[in-house]
Amino acid sequence: MAKQQPISADTAALAPGVWGVLATPFHGPGQAVDHRSLRAEVEFYRQAGAAGVVALGVFGEAASLSLAEQAEVIATVAEAGGGMPVVAGLSPRSTAPVVELARCLRQAAGAALIAVMAQVNSANPDTVRRHLDTLHEDCGVAVVIQDYPVASGVTISPGALAAVAAGCPYVAAIKCEAPPTAAAIAILARSVSVPLFGGLGGVGLIDELAAGAAGAMTGFSYPEGLIAAVRAHAAGGFDAARDAFSPWLPLANFENQPGIGLAIRKEILRRRGLIAESAVRSPAPGFPADLAPLLENHQRAAESQLRAGSGLSRRF
Amino acid sequence: MAKQQPISADTAALAPGVWGVLATPFHGPGQAVDHRSLRAEVEFYRQAGAAGVVALGVFGEAASLSLAEQAEVIATVAEAGGGMPVVAGLSPRSTAPVVELARCLRQAAGAALIAVMAQVNSANPDTVRRHLDTLHEDCGVAVVIQDYPVASGVTISPGALAAVAAGCPYVAAIKCEAPPTAAAIAILARSVSVPLFGGLGGVGLIDELAAGAAGAMTGFSYPEGLIAAVRAHAAGGFDAARDAFSPWLPLANFENQPGIGLAIRKEILRRRGLIAESAVRSPAPGFPADLAPLLENHQRAAESQLRAGSGLSRRF
Amino acid sequence: MAKQQPISADTAALAPGVWGVLATPFHGPGQAVDHRSLRAEVEFYRQAGAAGVVALGVFGEAASLSLAEQAEVIATVAEAGGGMPVVAGLSPRSTAPVVELARCLRQAAGAALIAVMAQVNSANPDTVRRHLDTLHEDCGVAVVIQDYPVASGVTISPGALAAVAAGCPYVAAIKCEAPPTAAAIAILARSVSVPLFGGLGGVGLIDELAAGAAGAMTGFSYPEGLIAAVRAHAAGGFDAARDAFSPWLPLANFENQPGIGLAIRKEILRRRGLIAESAVRSPAPGFPADLAPLLENHQRAAESQLRAGSGLSRRF
Amino acid sequence: MAKQQPISADTAALAPGVWGVLATPFHGPGQAVDHRSLRAEVEFYRQAGAAGVVALGVFGEAASLSLAEQAEVIATVAEAGGGMPVVAGLSPRSTAPVVELARCLRQAAGAALIAVMAQVNSANPDTVRRHLDTLHEDCGVAVVIQDYPVASGVTISPGALAAVAAGCPYVAAIKCEAPPTAAAIAILARSVSVPLFGGLGGVGLIDELAAGAAGAMTGFSYPEGLIAAVRAHAAGGFDAARDAFSPWLPLANFENQPGIGLAIRKEILRRRGLIAESAVRSPAPGFPADLAPLLENHQRAAESQLRAGSGLSRRF
Repeated sequence: MAKQQPISADTAALAPGVWGVLATPFHGPGQAVDHRSLRAEVEFYRQAGAAGVVALGVFGEAASLSLAEQAEVIATVAEAGGGMPVVAGLSPRSTAPVVELARCLRQAAGAALIAVMAQVNSANPDTVRRHLDTLHEDCGVAVVIQDYPVASGVTISPGALAAVAAGCPYVAAIKCEAPPTAAAIAILARSVSVPLFGGLGGVGLIDELAAGAAGAMTGFSYPEGLIAAVRAHAAGGFDAARDAFSPWLPLANFENQPGIGLAIRKEILRRRGLIAESAVRSPAPGFPADLAPLLENHQRAAESQLRAGSGLSRRF
Repeated sequence: MAKQQPISADTAALAPGVWGVLATPFHGPGQAVDHRSLRAEVEFYRQAGAAGVVALGVFGEAASLSLAEQAEVIATVAEAGGGMPVVAGLSPRSTAPVVELARCLRQAAGAALIAVMAQVNSANPDTVRRHLDTLHEDCGVAVVIQDYPVASGVTISPGALAAVAAGCPYVAAIKCEAPPTAAAIAILARSVSVPLFGGLGGVGLIDELAAGAAGAMTGFSYPEGLIAAVRAHAAGGFDAARDAFSPWLPLANFENQPGIGLAIRKEILRRRGLIAESAVRSPAPGFPADLAPLLENHQRAAESQLRAGSGLSRRF
Repeated sequence: MAKQQPISADTAALAPGVWGVLATPFHGPGQAVDHRSLRAEVEFYRQAGAAGVVALGVFGEAASLSLAEQAEVIATVAEAGGGMPVVAGLSPRSTAPVVELARCLRQAAGAALIAVMAQVNSANPDTVRRHLDTLHEDCGVAVVIQDYPVASGVTISPGALAAVAAGCPYVAAIKCEAPPTAAAIAILARSVSVPLFGGLGGVGLIDELAAGAAGAMTGFSYPEGLIAAVRAHAAGGFDAARDAFSPWLPLANFENQPGIGLAIRKEILRRRGLIAESAVRSPAPGFPADLAPLLENHQRAAESQLRAGSGLSRRF
Repeated sequence: MAKQQPISADTAALAPGVWGVLATPFHGPGQAVDHRSLRAEVEFYRQAGAAGVVALGVFGEAASLSLAEQAEVIATVAEAGGGMPVVAGLSPRSTAPVVELARCLRQAAGAALIAVMAQVNSANPDTVRRHLDTLHEDCGVAVVIQDYPVASGVTISPGALAAVAAGCPYVAAIKCEAPPTAAAIAILARSVSVPLFGGLGGVGLIDELAAGAAGAMTGFSYPEGLIAAVRAHAAGGFDAARDAFSPWLPLANFENQPGIGLAIRKEILRRRGLIAESAVRSPAPGFPADLAPLLENHQRAAESQLRAGSGLSRRF
């Protein structure tokens, strides 16, 4: 798979700020994709001031969607965004399936698709680079690298990751989700020029920003909190970010529980009226009824926090 | 995803014997699928006396093939088999992608496709059952259950696996690859009527047969050895199987080395003239040059073993 | 290992509140245990209002201490506590080494040792029960069960854990560190009467209290925050606990980074003047210099938070 | 932990051949160590022509023995060996417990103890080297490095392992149990001069010898087979080793089943009359009754193989 064509070096880096990782809402007993709710989600992020949205990420349950469904999701997101930049997650780890998927998504999405996001698929930087080269040459759009061992099964060192980024001029960002993330971001921030984003539901956001992250790229049931934190950091550094995001950390940690986090977050989105149903696709576990009172505690506090301002305008 | 149509209870179980898990051969710098080599492989299995073949299994690198390539592979296998039964592996673990893939493969394969093979996707038998029900209702062919935690990431108890099989009349076989396999097969053999097959390159075949397995469903560079062992067991029980397969175990163990087993097996198939190139798709590691002398040792011994007879006819 | 003597059913449950898991401080190039710093730590917890302390837990690096060192540590802790209740962690998972260690620690600790803490060592409740029975019969003190898969390698269901607790009248508490912890605590709180404690550095404390936990049993560089949270919950429920602990969550999450959490926490304890050196024993990684500015951010904020009151008296 | 005394560079390397890893037999309901059976085991290895024995390895259930029991075991083994070289396995991974244990074992064993065996405890060669330096300086005997990720949880590259061996003149051997073992041994054989031993119950022995191993260091219920294989390799290379060991591979693979392998091997040793009881300590699972007929198959074949000669003298 030798390089066949020159790779343009002028890829625009992703804008700093909050990139919202979209849930994929389902409806009815057959759990078809609920495009109406999906549109509402995108519109919500646009109004909230997100830098862009990421469809088909891990939180978007992309691995539970058929190729056809993924194409429909990206088409809806691109159309609903009204020009807002869109990144499409690519779940497979091998080159041929990733290339096939990227081609399919690019065709469905049109110009709104500014990047695809591929997972690190080897600890060896040369292997990753060849993989991304092939992907970029075929689909022609910029690439966001996602370093998320929980999903990829691969652990790569910050140094090897920097080598990948340095060798791939079409890389538009790195999504750093290999804990300890702040330590990795501190190392990468010294050695690469592409923007780095924290993820993991925001649990380490304050430190990731302090270490040099350009923002957050993650799902969270109250993205207003993430946006407030990133804006506060830009304006006032660590202390301001800490003041802005501390009130949201109880909820971020509640959502960050392994296994059930997806179901918790969709249930809150449903209660906020952003999506119609909170169903997740099997074999992911549903929302545990035991936790309903705790969820209500958090949501009540979150709504109160929203009303109190948090640096956000009244429109939410 | 409620059941919509009755499931026929008369699904034919897979025939006992050896089901060959096919390598997917690639050729050239672009590693396109080499359909000519693939056809030769199928023809080889047919002449060797295999009960059938399995395309797109883990050894077939299915997770590194695009949907389009997978359809082409199954079409070639079905056509080359000349009526030999074909099972198609399904790599995804979630329902929608599995259904999409099965539909696509069924259309490409035609009547030769007698079953699809799906991985266990939950420790909960009800979750697995609903998954398989949806798959079967949509694609209409029998289902082989693969219990292979290394690929699926899921550990299910033999009891729960038996419950799945008991509740799914369209299950045509279980491929048991969760060690200790002989113990699991002994338990399953008492509680389910579907045929059980050993896998894992044959390293536990003698015991799996003794515990009640109907045969082997696996890749091995010298399937003649597997066939000789299964026939010997049918004719003479444990001692005969042991005598027949002991000379092949050094090679089976050599191939069973984690990580590099795929590359070893393809390299031997290449040296046997069955496939034209031994390349594996990245990020799987290639054949370590260090091991070439060892591979030659094994192949020399294997050829000598073939000539010595092993209960097989001269045509190999 | 049949039961030989009756087990008293009147074991006193652990008192609710915060149980401080002690760091084991080392000094000098040989990294000998620094008993003077250890004493200061214990005294600090006593004055801070902890319900008790836990020596030789995972955060106490017990697995890096010799048997002799462990005995010396528990002796110092018991003596320095001035009557404060002490729990001793037991790192081994098999019965004979645990019994040997418990006997040794009990002798060294004297009456201050009110319980030993043993890890879940099997998913099978009968196996765990027999293990704990043997331990209790030999050492004669109450047992705290620690469910921490990261350390034990064992995953047990909440139902099986409840069965263990129900069958072992000498169990004085369960330390719940198998995420999602709030879901597990909600289930356990309905079925067992022993007190449940959250751990994991307090990242889920607010939810664990809401789900029924009696407090926290964990290490944290500012235990004042944990104590304020537990007291606030007792007085004002979720909202009060949330208000009290939100300002501490940025630090709790910073400390909770896998791998380096131990080094972070010891470094903060050192900067607070509670221990003389922050060294951790190999092969645990030391504090990454890259994170020093972030640590200073957190510590500055924490000191400011302490001064602001947080429901704590001035003596800290 | 700076080096305090010079390390002698003249450490004798372990002799090539088969080093028998001893089971620790237990008796009675209390599962006390059965020293009489242990002595019989040692005597058996001596008569069988083993190069030496390894007590307290993973197969010796060392992690389930108290420190006191481990000292008694090594004393019995040293005394029963009548001068046969003895290696003592060290289960802990941290320096202080390993040093404490080695000191205790050395005192109990006397002059028969020619080496202790320590596990790789870090992927970083400097960390491992400091660990082994401290161990050797304190206990004064040679060190065998065990690279067994299943027990240690650590994965080290062959290059890093070679660096450790090169920097530690007191290393007497490396036990290579990180699959693919033949590939690792091929790399190590080119770069280090210390003898390399295969383990893992002998499943890869033929290839390990071909790759440059000096022998096997493992448990196996019929060590006669291992000895025959190693002798055959010395006399006739790969083909001779293959002919000698092929008849033993069905049993080696049967014993190599994860989880239950320990119980299988002890049950066969019991049926051979080498140990009185086959009990294993909890939480290890016992021998599954389902597999009794299979075990009998193997044992009947093994006895027949012994009688047939296998290059061994009549005394077995």
